[in-house]
Amino acid sequence: MSSSSPEVRVPFDDAYRAVRDAVGRLGITGERGDRCARLFVEATRDGVYSHGVERFPVFARSVRSGLVDVAASPELRAGSGTAIERWDGRRGPGNLNAWFAMDRAMALAREHGVGAVALGNTNHWMRGGSYGWQAVERGFLALCWSNTLPNTSGAGEPPVVGNNPLVVGLPRAAGPLVLDMALSQFSVGVMTGYAQRGERLPLPGGFDASGALTDDAAAVVSGGYGAAIGRWKGFALAVVLDAWAAMLSGGRATHELGTDPAQESGQTQFFLAVDPDAVSAPGERERMVDGIVAALKAAPSTAGGELRYPGEGTVRTRAENLDHGLPIRRETWDLIRSVE
Amino acid sequence: MSSSSPEVRVPFDDAYRAVRDAVGRLGITGERGDRCARLFVEATRDGVYSHGVERFPVFARSVRSGLVDVAASPELRAGSGTAIERWDGRRGPGNLNAWFAMDRAMALAREHGVGAVALGNTNHWMRGGSYGWQAVERGFLALCWSNTLPNTSGAGEPPVVGNNPLVVGLPRAAGPLVLDMALSQFSVGVMTGYAQRGERLPLPGGFDASGALTDDAAAVVSGGYGAAIGRWKGFALAVVLDAWAAMLSGGRATHELGTDPAQESGQTQFFLAVDPDAVSAPGERERMVDGIVAALKAAPSTAGGELRYPGEGTVRTRAENLDHGLPIRRETWDLIRSVE
Repeated sequence: MSSSSPEVRVPFDDAYRAVRDAVGRLGITGERGDRCARLFVEATRDGVYSHGVERFPVFARSVRSGLVDVAASPELRAGSGTAIERWDGRRGPGNLNAWFAMDRAMALAREHGVGAVALGNTNHWMRGGSYGWQAVERGFLALCWSNTLPNTSGAGEPPVVGNNPLVVGLPRAAGPLVLDMALSQFSVGVMTGYAQRGERLPLPGGFDASGALTDDAAAVVSGGYGAAIGRWKGFALAVVLDAWAAMLSGGRATHELGTDPAQESGQTQFFLAVDPDAVSAPGERERMVDGIVAALKAAPSTAGGELRYPGEGTVRTRAENLDHGLPIRRETWDLIRSVE
Repeated sequence: MSSSSPEVRVPFDDAYRAVRDAVGRLGITGERGDRCARLFVEATRDGVYSHGVERFPVFARSVRSGLVDVAASPELRAGSGTAIERWDGRRGPGNLNAWFAMDRAMALAREHGVGAVALGNTNHWMRGGSYGWQAVERGFLALCWSNTLPNTSGAGEPPVVGNNPLVVGLPRAAGPLVLDMALSQFSVGVMTGYAQRGERLPLPGGFDASGALTDDAAAVVSGGYGAAIGRWKGFALAVVLDAWAAMLSGGRATHELGTDPAQESGQTQFFLAVDPDAVSAPGERERMVDGIVAALKAAPSTAGGELRYPGEGTVRTRAENLDHGLPIRRETWDLIRSVE
């Protein structure tokens, strides 16, 4: 983990207990507290540091400021007897709401083969990949996304689209495939790291203040904008994912989420789950995905090593962090244990 | 339309009748012939020239060589009473199979709110956007994709993933949103055009033979490889879309489709449709999408004009081509009228 604060290594169980106590002091208790803490700690365990316990201080501030209502649970607004439902997140904790929504999508998929949930009026779901892992660990395929406030540029224009994270999960006995990616080429955190180290980005991944495409990380983070993947293609994908989730949930679109990241609230999300047993046999689909992975592994890579599938690195990082303890910035760890 | 052959302008109805007669002579008659011809001609009408009637000669060769079985219709393989079904395309005409699959997904969505079809053993679906328009014109949201043979590189390695076209459609009274994009930054056709004109690509969109990222179109098309959008991100997205469709359909994955574009057959596809009436009211969702479009239109663009939503340009091109006739290369037009 890159960090400007000294780092501690905390055993998983200790981190979990500390975060569970901390969210309890914020008012999230019982099973909801267990789940909320687990989502924070597992993101750090899996190497998604920016959206794990390092994000807890932001979450705590959002609770204090009223952006997140710790007591709120989703309420059903539409869809009855169908394989799609619409839920109002009521500005509850974003990770609990998203977990609930994927759980509902899976319940609908168990019944109908495929299930979908449109969720409006929620909050930042933290690590999107959590909901992909949630599904694949229970044998489901999953596709979900969230909108965000406008933070990504297609061609150098001031942002009007979000970097709308997109998650795709596929169960597999020998290691599931879980893609968790934002539609921007680099996160602000990654670009800030390059800028601080005085390094160029590995490819032009943003625009400077004049709107010119650049690999100068410092120029992007100071007055410029991050670029959408594939520029006009990622821009267009961001537009339709935002519109899809908003029109089905009745929730806020990107342009209705304001422009201040510290005030971002009321996001809109969409969750799809498929029960593969509805159309295929386990042995057949394991062979299918094993074959895809084997083809990747047999192919030459530019780095000389093996090409990796989405989710492969996660399992490796998870094992390392379980062995050596979760890396947590000292000041974050202190805050977690002291938050009131 | 960029072209090395002189071009004729053919009224829509004349083009439709000529293509219908031509597909009839290939053995596709009756309603199937009408539909097949319409899909070719409407793609050209809408400006997707490479996948409209200009592709008819390739299609005719595929029929002659036996890659496409004009007599084959999809057969149901799994899924009964559920909202997801698995169909075997039996190597029938790819556009007819894809149309059928989206039609089935919509029928399932009418019943369950959401419907999905996994289609294996099919053929090139020509213009993917056709199936997005098919859905939005009937009031459905649509998400679908196809795999392709390996033709796209993430980091300069020889291709192991396809450029798997991805389509997202959203109905809207004042103009639907339809995204139709491959996961490669540029098509081979577009890059060849830049190379022939001696122009650089507008951004590094491929790799040269040594695997270096470049904006030199000639270096990409002669021995290099097209780049995935967002490089490792588009690469990873291509992997999971391929695996998703293959594991549910039992059809071929990208690595099983060979490497010769002239022999590409047996593709695998996935179709999802949502009936928005299941969870939202028409007036509410029209306002929602109108608001998103209005926000785009109000934002500054780098070109000085308006930002466009996916599908907006299609409607404009369609009107122009209906006014002035469809632009068709003279040699294609001659072949369509003479094919036996």
